[in-house]
Amino acid sequence: MVQVAVLGHGVVGSGVVEVIHQHKESIYKKAKQEINIKYILDIREFPDLPYHNLFTKNFDEILNDEEVKIVIEVMGGINPAFEYVKKCLENGKSVVTSNKELVAQKGAELLKIANDNNLNFLFEASVGGGIPVLRPIAQCLAANDLYEINGILNGTTNFILTKMDKENMEFADALALAQKLGYAERDPGADIDGIDSCRKICILASLAFGKHVYPNQVYTEGIRNITLEQKEYAQNFNGAIKLIGRSVLKENGKISAAVYPAIVPYDNQLSHVEDVFNAIMVRGDAIGDVMFYGRGAGKLPTASAVVADVIDCVKHLSARKYLSWSEGSEDYVENEEKSISSFMICVKNQNGIKDRITEIFGNVEFITRKNGEDEIAFVTPKEQEYKITEKLNLLNAAVLFKLHILD
Amino acid sequence: MVQVAVLGHGVVGSGVVEVIHQHKESIYKKAKQEINIKYILDIREFPDLPYHNLFTKNFDEILNDEEVKIVIEVMGGINPAFEYVKKCLENGKSVVTSNKELVAQKGAELLKIANDNNLNFLFEASVGGGIPVLRPIAQCLAANDLYEINGILNGTTNFILTKMDKENMEFADALALAQKLGYAERDPGADIDGIDSCRKICILASLAFGKHVYPNQVYTEGIRNITLEQKEYAQNFNGAIKLIGRSVLKENGKISAAVYPAIVPYDNQLSHVEDVFNAIMVRGDAIGDVMFYGRGAGKLPTASAVVADVIDCVKHLSARKYLSWSEGSEDYVENEEKSISSFMICVKNQNGIKDRITEIFGNVEFITRKNGEDEIAFVTPKEQEYKITEKLNLLNAAVLFKLHILD
Repeated sequence: MVQVAVLGHGVVGSGVVEVIHQHKESIYKKAKQEINIKYILDIREFPDLPYHNLFTKNFDEILNDEEVKIVIEVMGGINPAFEYVKKCLENGKSVVTSNKELVAQKGAELLKIANDNNLNFLFEASVGGGIPVLRPIAQCLAANDLYEINGILNGTTNFILTKMDKENMEFADALALAQKLGYAERDPGADIDGIDSCRKICILASLAFGKHVYPNQVYTEGIRNITLEQKEYAQNFNGAIKLIGRSVLKENGKISAAVYPAIVPYDNQLSHVEDVFNAIMVRGDAIGDVMFYGRGAGKLPTASAVVADVIDCVKHLSARKYLSWSEGSEDYVENEEKSISSFMICVKNQNGIKDRITEIFGNVEFITRKNGEDEIAFVTPKEQEYKITEKLNLLNAAVLFKLHILD
Repeated sequence: MVQVAVLGHGVVGSGVVEVIHQHKESIYKKAKQEINIKYILDIREFPDLPYHNLFTKNFDEILNDEEVKIVIEVMGGINPAFEYVKKCLENGKSVVTSNKELVAQKGAELLKIANDNNLNFLFEASVGGGIPVLRPIAQCLAANDLYEINGILNGTTNFILTKMDKENMEFADALALAQKLGYAERDPGADIDGIDSCRKICILASLAFGKHVYPNQVYTEGIRNITLEQKEYAQNFNGAIKLIGRSVLKENGKISAAVYPAIVPYDNQLSHVEDVFNAIMVRGDAIGDVMFYGRGAGKLPTASAVVADVIDCVKHLSARKYLSWSEGSEDYVENEEKSISSFMICVKNQNGIKDRITEIFGNVEFITRKNGEDEIAFVTPKEQEYKITEKLNLLNAAVLFKLHILD
């Protein structure tokens, strides 16, 4: 029997307890041992729960109990999660977490401590909720050189964008609906400003390319400014607007990493990922495009990914896993302005503007929409973003919007 | 250094050699050991290859070389692959294969021998080519009870159906194009009659539900009879015709398993999987729908999956993997006629037929197409297939086609 402790009894934490209790038999079959929850750490009390006797408010009780071999950190946030996880790893306990903020900020450091102590630090649930993606990237694609990741990494924003795209709902109404359905927080900033997606692309890029990418190195733009007019232009271009997390390995060994709303053409699978679903597309030299799709959040999907990690831990209690990367560096992530992309740009209409656009940008495609006579929208050839900016300055027209187009 | 042997130097075999040679450095980093190809077994000679000295025609040379720890079987077919793999496993060598026919026919038997000898028998490449799917199903979804699999498991048929759907190409022309592009064999039966998909759903169902499913237990229907008229009806129903491999765990502990062309509604991700791409969708109680997408065939994608298995083997040379299932039984797979589905049925038009259809089938949806005045197409409520057949007999009209509609 393996004794485990759960830190935090919130949505994911209570889901973990539920999954471990409800799948006792199949977990035993897979782990070849019983997994027993010995402690649950929470500041709150839950006297009505059948397992109320497992609760403690004292982290040291868990830390000092040598029977506890695996600690499940599902509190979220950096403090005190970082301190707790670090202490566990330094004291002979493997750690499984779903905490994307922690992994995005402190992943390399914690992986090193785990490695130095021959323990596991696993975090499959931190990206894509229940979708198996980190382990397949690390393990199954071991014989590929990966060079690009594009993902729809946040279910809340994808729900909002789907409602705008399919039901012509205004952003504010779609957000209100997401809040009503429990998909979005009352303070929705972490989702709609791209912060959550940013953490996830950090983790994916760190794993795929081998060096830590920190959130403050990632250009991050959310979806607050997306309008129904923009989605109409996107549709007329045969695409859908999605919030994309993207990272590309460059020839100089550096990478780009960014989060922004982009027009995804319909011939790209990501354009068909709807509602609260997530999808992560990776590109490798041998394998081409591979995509992982599923529910990126939610109590049970996330909890089931956490428990799968726990089972893996039980089966490799003393083995170092090869889910790992090294510390990052300041100049490792290139300025996003240097990245090459095609853009859809929309400017105010004026006399002779089309000719000037063609003159400055070269071979563009003009896109129209109903009642859009006062605007001119066009799609640029692929170019580094700072050059696009220079050309826009040259054009000297009022820019209504500028959106990336995903390759 | 780990010594390996490759059985067969065909498309996949030469790809394996290429991937191992080209990714030497990253493989070393991941496996923590060098992987060296000591032998390549082939009946042919390749004097011009730089590694021509590795070739042998004598299997026993490989079998009796105790240095060889891992054998890569990429010959295909049952004979002599089965005999060779069995002998390797009985003689202390782990085996990695991409041979779906072998795994579908002999998986349980070979897994048992591997297990008894504390060796690995791995076959990630046998389903979905380079897409990581078997390991994620086995490992990452360990905390889920899976109950349904639907997959587009064959790239050739999906290419043909995509050409019919998007470019209005006749079946025969699309097949000829697939042959010209090298996607289809000169004798295309294994693909277009569903035999290849059948083997893959056998492997997926065996793994997901824990008991071996044999190809002869699986109702299998190919795409030879799909017409442009049918795809037009499918489009007017907001769906696309796809060749689907499907297996469902039933409440009585038995399963259904089948391969057939089905109309996939556009709100199902599988409907958007185009060209030679494959996708496997699994449903679990905690996780909901999860999909794995990518190139299901091709030299390098398949080879990279084989090599990833080899790396996994190197890291767990003496460990039993929990990719495993038990022997099947005759009554484990239920007759497909008992499965519940909705159908699109098209019959010859005649006086009063619509009333009789409604009378017999209940609440149906009628679908029309241009120039289809002589036909009546309708979508039935969900029902067991044998009941639909009974009702069709009662209707007593000339049936032009009957297609499953995927849930």
